[in-house]
Amino acid sequence: MGGSAAAGKSVDGGGRAAQRVPVPEARPFLDTFRANLKETFFPDDPFRAVVRERGFGRRAAAALRYFFPFLEWAPAYRLGTFKSDLIAGITIASLAIPQGISYAKLANLPPILGLYSSFVPPLVYAMMGSSKDLAVGTVAVASLLIASMLGAEVSATENPALYLHLAFTATFFAGVIQASLGILRLGFIVDFLSHAAIVGFMGGAATVVCLQQLKGMLGLEHFTTSTDLVSVMRSVFSQTHQWRWESVVLGCGFLFFLLVTRFFSKRQPRFFWVSAAAPLTSVILGSLLVYFTHAENHGVQIIGNLKKGLNPISVTNLQFTPPYMMLALKTGLITGVIALAEGIAVGRSFAMFKNYHIDGNKEMIAIGTMNILGSFTSCYLTTGPFSRSAVNYNAGCKTAMSNVVMSLAVMVTLLFLTPLFHYTPLVVLSAIIMSAMLGLIDFPAAVHLWHVDKVDFCVCAGAYLGVVFGSVEMGLVVAVAISVLRVLLFVARPRTTVLGNVPDTNVYRRMDQYTTARAVPGVLVLRVDSPIYFANSGYLRERFTRWIDEDDERTSAKGETGVQYVVLDMGAVGSIDTSGTSMLDELKKTLDRRGIQIVLANPGSEIMKKLDSSKVLELIGHEWIFPTVGEAVAECDFVLHSHKPGMVVDGASHENMV
Amino acid sequence: MGGSAAAGKSVDGGGRAAQRVPVPEARPFLDTFRANLKETFFPDDPFRAVVRERGFGRRAAAALRYFFPFLEWAPAYRLGTFKSDLIAGITIASLAIPQGISYAKLANLPPILGLYSSFVPPLVYAMMGSSKDLAVGTVAVASLLIASMLGAEVSATENPALYLHLAFTATFFAGVIQASLGILRLGFIVDFLSHAAIVGFMGGAATVVCLQQLKGMLGLEHFTTSTDLVSVMRSVFSQTHQWRWESVVLGCGFLFFLLVTRFFSKRQPRFFWVSAAAPLTSVILGSLLVYFTHAENHGVQIIGNLKKGLNPISVTNLQFTPPYMMLALKTGLITGVIALAEGIAVGRSFAMFKNYHIDGNKEMIAIGTMNILGSFTSCYLTTGPFSRSAVNYNAGCKTAMSNVVMSLAVMVTLLFLTPLFHYTPLVVLSAIIMSAMLGLIDFPAAVHLWHVDKVDFCVCAGAYLGVVFGSVEMGLVVAVAISVLRVLLFVARPRTTVLGNVPDTNVYRRMDQYTTARAVPGVLVLRVDSPIYFANSGYLRERFTRWIDEDDERTSAKGETGVQYVVLDMGAVGSIDTSGTSMLDELKKTLDRRGIQIVLANPGSEIMKKLDSSKVLELIGHEWIFPTVGEAVAECDFVLHSHKPGMVVDGASHENMV
Repeated sequence: MGGSAAAGKSVDGGGRAAQRVPVPEARPFLDTFRANLKETFFPDDPFRAVVRERGFGRRAAAALRYFFPFLEWAPAYRLGTFKSDLIAGITIASLAIPQGISYAKLANLPPILGLYSSFVPPLVYAMMGSSKDLAVGTVAVASLLIASMLGAEVSATENPALYLHLAFTATFFAGVIQASLGILRLGFIVDFLSHAAIVGFMGGAATVVCLQQLKGMLGLEHFTTSTDLVSVMRSVFSQTHQWRWESVVLGCGFLFFLLVTRFFSKRQPRFFWVSAAAPLTSVILGSLLVYFTHAENHGVQIIGNLKKGLNPISVTNLQFTPPYMMLALKTGLITGVIALAEGIAVGRSFAMFKNYHIDGNKEMIAIGTMNILGSFTSCYLTTGPFSRSAVNYNAGCKTAMSNVVMSLAVMVTLLFLTPLFHYTPLVVLSAIIMSAMLGLIDFPAAVHLWHVDKVDFCVCAGAYLGVVFGSVEMGLVVAVAISVLRVLLFVARPRTTVLGNVPDTNVYRRMDQYTTARAVPGVLVLRVDSPIYFANSGYLRERFTRWIDEDDERTSAKGETGVQYVVLDMGAVGSIDTSGTSMLDELKKTLDRRGIQIVLANPGSEIMKKLDSSKVLELIGHEWIFPTVGEAVAECDFVLHSHKPGMVVDGASHENMV
Repeated sequence: MGGSAAAGKSVDGGGRAAQRVPVPEARPFLDTFRANLKETFFPDDPFRAVVRERGFGRRAAAALRYFFPFLEWAPAYRLGTFKSDLIAGITIASLAIPQGISYAKLANLPPILGLYSSFVPPLVYAMMGSSKDLAVGTVAVASLLIASMLGAEVSATENPALYLHLAFTATFFAGVIQASLGILRLGFIVDFLSHAAIVGFMGGAATVVCLQQLKGMLGLEHFTTSTDLVSVMRSVFSQTHQWRWESVVLGCGFLFFLLVTRFFSKRQPRFFWVSAAAPLTSVILGSLLVYFTHAENHGVQIIGNLKKGLNPISVTNLQFTPPYMMLALKTGLITGVIALAEGIAVGRSFAMFKNYHIDGNKEMIAIGTMNILGSFTSCYLTTGPFSRSAVNYNAGCKTAMSNVVMSLAVMVTLLFLTPLFHYTPLVVLSAIIMSAMLGLIDFPAAVHLWHVDKVDFCVCAGAYLGVVFGSVEMGLVVAVAISVLRVLLFVARPRTTVLGNVPDTNVYRRMDQYTTARAVPGVLVLRVDSPIYFANSGYLRERFTRWIDEDDERTSAKGETGVQYVVLDMGAVGSIDTSGTSMLDELKKTLDRRGIQIVLANPGSEIMKKLDSSKVLELIGHEWIFPTVGEAVAECDFVLHSHKPGMVVDGASHENMV
């Protein structure tokens, strides 16, 4: 590397411009601001396809294709593709009808709403969504959340009309929030729900939903409105005399049937349709059983009348007046974000399998629009549930047309088949929900988290316990709080390591990881693995001092020369703020008093800019900043060996020299 | 580096163990946990001095010396040192007496409390504090906060006894919280108040305090209890007919005098005592003026009677019962943390000048204890104010003995001299506060922030505007929120850069910073500057894909070969969680489908451990992980040139080959 020759030049103050770390030219503030804004909010450059086109007409067409992806695939749609989509659509419809009714009951809403919600939203999604595999429908967790959040203030049994209207309003707000997040390019907020948090949260929610099903399974009439384990257990065991054996037997039988079919389909993926058709089969069998045995007179509760006909318009039912608007807004916010997280995650997973691209923010606009339009037409919150989308994928869907098929099948049901559900026993719905929920408890994932990352496991366990023993919202807050705390702690307590030279090379490595790396006498090479921010500048100052003290103790015990140069490897320092530059300023002054020279290696361009504008560059001296640790150490080594140690230890004379 | 020879070996699957990146051995979970805990909470290894000693007696003595640093310096204390401390102590006493009275008025507390608070706490600090320069006393910002927070629920004029007791209780809680933060080693919470936040917050608080002084300066009897600019201006201009010219003239005169002396002392640091003595001089001059002109009968308000005697015991006055306990707790929490931040920052700054070490957590215990004991003896919240400590430092203090001298001087005042303050006009106190506050508005610091770091400037401006137009608490919340958001955004949107080879070396540099760096055909080297966490794993996956797409577009436009290897430089990735490992897993699978091989360079030991336990290491293949980018690219280059491109592009055959 020619270290000594180069170092000789730097002592006389020049001639080494080529090896200097450049200070980037100052760019106008607005340019930097615009570039940062783009990188933060448009990292995927979504309008590339639009901007590439020339002329207004072509651009408008490209923009239309951007917002309505079906314009892209519909013109080239062929019969062969349709056959695949038809099969997939009918399969998911047979799942959507019983699940829709079940989840609507879970949300304390009229069962018919589950069917309404499987009619309009899938049509909207088919036009606007970019996923080919997402199957639209209601989800259990959001349904439960609606029941618990709205139910805390408005009783679904005492004031069903208000409760229903609030559910529409919450759906409207959820849609508005989802679409806004997409339009404002704030999709990354959803990323703050980490995978670990979602595993714990979903497991907890599934547990809670299963517990709620004890009402239906045991045939109880009264039940707690709380969702936590303690309240539910107290409610169940305080009325053991009310348990109905007919209900228990029927429920357990169907649950067993559903679990066996699910297990079978999992083992034999060709027979995916067995588990997909099982819920509808259960509903039909259960209804026939009740119809012929008149079990409804023996304590087996049934759905009762379902109104025939398509979705009534509900836009006039939205409540935009106090005191309930805030409640609907809060419910919409939380359920909307959770539903969105599931929808986006599902869309991305399947896109990855089939190797196409999903634009998260555009998906948010699609899901948001579908909920807004849904809230106008008597639907409640929908998203892309994982289980149904997996069935869609396994059934061989090719485009979003499978959603249209499902929607049409539901339409036929609404128009002609609703009376058939009159005798469907509620306990079958409970069994359907429970069997779906048991699949959401992902125990192996939790074990995996424990093995790979203990903090992630804590996030997961926190979310689970928060949901099961507190409430769904509490679990969410706990999970997000631990996740954010982890990020903050990473920045507040960054790892600092001592680097050593790998013999016979110019390479410097962490001495704790690479056992062959050796320390250079008189030179301490330190590395920081995080940005230097206000949150860690105080810590880093103390930690650097402690490294130097420890090294001094070690060397003085051995009778070697102490530290005379501290080389900071800034390679992993991604950013620095004014607290960070002040810290370097102070560190430089403190080390000067101890006669130790501070040397920086490999700072990035942003760091150089900040050091320059804060005058710290001037203080340290541009000649003490090197592109690599190797060059920095070579320079230190050269100065150490070409002068008497006394001169270097004495800070004043050393400063004069440079 | 012998790249091709080494690469040749790796293809046949072995013999290169020395250059492999080692996977660290699994350590027992509890060991890792303990080590992390130590690094997080005891980064400064505070008990080193204690642990080093042998035998119980010596250890106990060392521990005692640790908690009571005066045991360290007192035995060796000499007369020469005392002379310096005596001068410094008397100087700060002459500042403490008028400031103490002024700030107590600001807190709507009886003026005598300002003197009480300068008697007991300094004695406690002298025993327990480790700073040699900190001068203990009350501060304006905390005083104002007490007035605004307690005053919002309890009126100081209508219910003075309750208000007083709540002030003691708040001080007690502040002390408990400060000491607990120290004992629980949570001192880093204070670090989350960044320098920028403090500049803005202090400036805003100083503005607000000055605005409050308009009451005294204009001689108004009634005044708003709000602190925001709008309320104060409305209050001032709605009662222009109440303005007293005598008060205005007197106030402006003294303010001018104080500012001139301060300006003079700043220019001539030898004459630091001029500005230090100016407040007491103003008080004496003002009192004499009122005494001889009987201005108290012409609308100039005076302090009135001050009780003679030392601090009465107030431990029985603490309120631990609802409904006011929560108010006191909240006030104590906020004022305690703010006072602590100032005290620690001041202690550290002066320790840096004199090159000795301050243990932040131990300081917190000292400040907390002094406030707990203070709350038992009729004192309200004290800390180490910057202005007074600067005077102490300039006056040549050598040890914490100067606090003892100040305390004794205040004791003499309390015992014999309080009647002298009877005629002190309130307007002089207002002038003293205003002149002190104007020094806190650090306009050049704000300009510096703008030049160095725009985000820090936003934090500063947010804190300032929040305090001035909202409330002190709001300013604090705004500042902390922007600061935390910045950290989160740094992690959520990390910078990714393309690295290029510096010709004739093995070194890879950012191509946007080092213009000489050149891309290697067929190999894309990407670098991430942050940990890979849940908050950015989605973003990074998209960003990586976009880099590859862009590179493909560029090369195909030129007719060159497209990307066949993506080398990820993990050198700056300090940590990874399970979302991060899943992202790499997905990325590997996606790139495999495109026939692109993923290669990792320079992962740290923690990363290797996570990759190993999550099986991603197995998926990518240990042979595709290299200690440096240079070696990684050499290997890719070797494979590229020793096989036909077709073989490499075809993912399947390539996988068979490795």
